[in-house]
Amino acid sequence: MLKFYYSPGSCAIASRIALEEAGTPYELVTLDFATNQQRSPEYLKINPKGRVPALATERGVITENPAILSYIAQSNPAAKLAPLDDPFAFGQMQAFNNYLASTVHVAHAHGRRGTRWADDANAIAEMKRKVPETMAACFEIIEHDMLAGPWVMGNMYTVADPYLFTLSSWLESDQVDITRFPKVQDHFRRMAERPAVKRALQD
Amino acid sequence: MLKFYYSPGSCAIASRIALEEAGTPYELVTLDFATNQQRSPEYLKINPKGRVPALATERGVITENPAILSYIAQSNPAAKLAPLDDPFAFGQMQAFNNYLASTVHVAHAHGRRGTRWADDANAIAEMKRKVPETMAACFEIIEHDMLAGPWVMGNMYTVADPYLFTLSSWLESDQVDITRFPKVQDHFRRMAERPAVKRALQD
Repeated sequence: MLKFYYSPGSCAIASRIALEEAGTPYELVTLDFATNQQRSPEYLKINPKGRVPALATERGVITENPAILSYIAQSNPAAKLAPLDDPFAFGQMQAFNNYLASTVHVAHAHGRRGTRWADDANAIAEMKRKVPETMAACFEIIEHDMLAGPWVMGNMYTVADPYLFTLSSWLESDQVDITRFPKVQDHFRRMAERPAVKRALQD
Repeated sequence: MLKFYYSPGSCAIASRIALEEAGTPYELVTLDFATNQQRSPEYLKINPKGRVPALATERGVITENPAILSYIAQSNPAAKLAPLDDPFAFGQMQAFNNYLASTVHVAHAHGRRGTRWADDANAIAEMKRKVPETMAACFEIIEHDMLAGPWVMGNMYTVADPYLFTLSSWLESDQVDITRFPKVQDHFRRMAERPAVKRALQD
C-alpha cells in the first residue's frame, strides 16, 4: 500500500486531496514539524531533502507536489484527474502546477522560511514584509490569465485544483484579501465543499 | 511550427537542448533581457509571467521548464526522452526536474534576482552572500541521493539531463567548485559533448 508522508498545514495537503479524489488506499504518516521530525535520520532515508510531501510506492519514493500529483493521476486513470491522452493539455496543467511550486509557494515561504535564503535577522524580516505584495502579484496572474474556470483547466477537474486550493488557503495568513480575486474565491469555496477535500482536512 | 521564446544564459537553454534532442523543427525567438523585452506588452500576451522559456504551439503556449520538457518528450515519443509508459519512473523524473525548478533555480536566483523577494539593498546583498552555501547544499543532495548515473535516471537519457546540465553550468558563477561533485562534473562533461547541446549553445 502507498505510504504518504505529510504534515498538517503544509503544501502536502494538495497531494493528500488528490489521493482522496483517486480513491486509492494509502497509509498516512504524519510528521511533526515542531520537533523537526522531517530532519530525522529515519525520514532523511525516505526523502533526503527533509521536506513533505513524499509518496512511498512499492518501487520507491516520489517527492515534489507536481510530480506526485501527476503520478496519482497517471496511475489512477479511471479517476480522470488529468488530461492523460493529450500532451498539450497535460503540459498546460503541469505548467500551472509548476508555477504554484516554483513561484507562488516560494513567495509564501519567504514569510516563514526566510532562513533558507538569508542568515541576517533584518534581511529575514524584510523578506517577510514583502510577502503580501508578492503573493498578491501571483494571484493577479492566476485570476486574470491562468484560472480558466470553473476549474483550473476549465470544465475538467484535475490535480491542479487541489494544489490551487492549498495555496489559496494561505492568502489570509499572508494578509492578502481573497475577495480581490473573485474567480479564485469561487474556486476555493467549491473546493471546500468536495467530499474528498473534507476527508483530507478532517484531522 | 513551434515558436520557442528564449534568452541566452537563462534556464531556457534546458528546453532548447531538449528541442534539439527531439529533432523537432522550431523557430527561435530571442528576448533581450538587457532591454527588458520579457516585460514588453507583446511578450506579456504570450507569457503573462514575463519569463522564459515559453513554447508556443498551434494550440497555445506552455511555460515552465519541467512542463515544457515533459511536453517535448510526450509529443516526440520516437526520441525516447522520458519513460513515457511508466508512471513511477516518469514521476521520479518529474520530481528531479521539480527540485531543480523549485529549489535549485530558486537558490541561484537569490544572487541575481533578489528584488523579487526584498526591496532593501542590505537584504538583497545578504541573500546574494548566502548563494554559494545554498547552491552547494543542493548539489550535495543531487550528487549523493539523486543523480543515478551516468544519466540522471540511470542508463536512459531523459529531459532531466539537459536541465541538470543547465543548472550545473551556473555553479562557477555562484562560486561553487564543481569538482566537489564528481558525478555531477562527469555528467556535465558528457553533456557538453552531445551534438544537440553544441547546436543549442552555438549562438
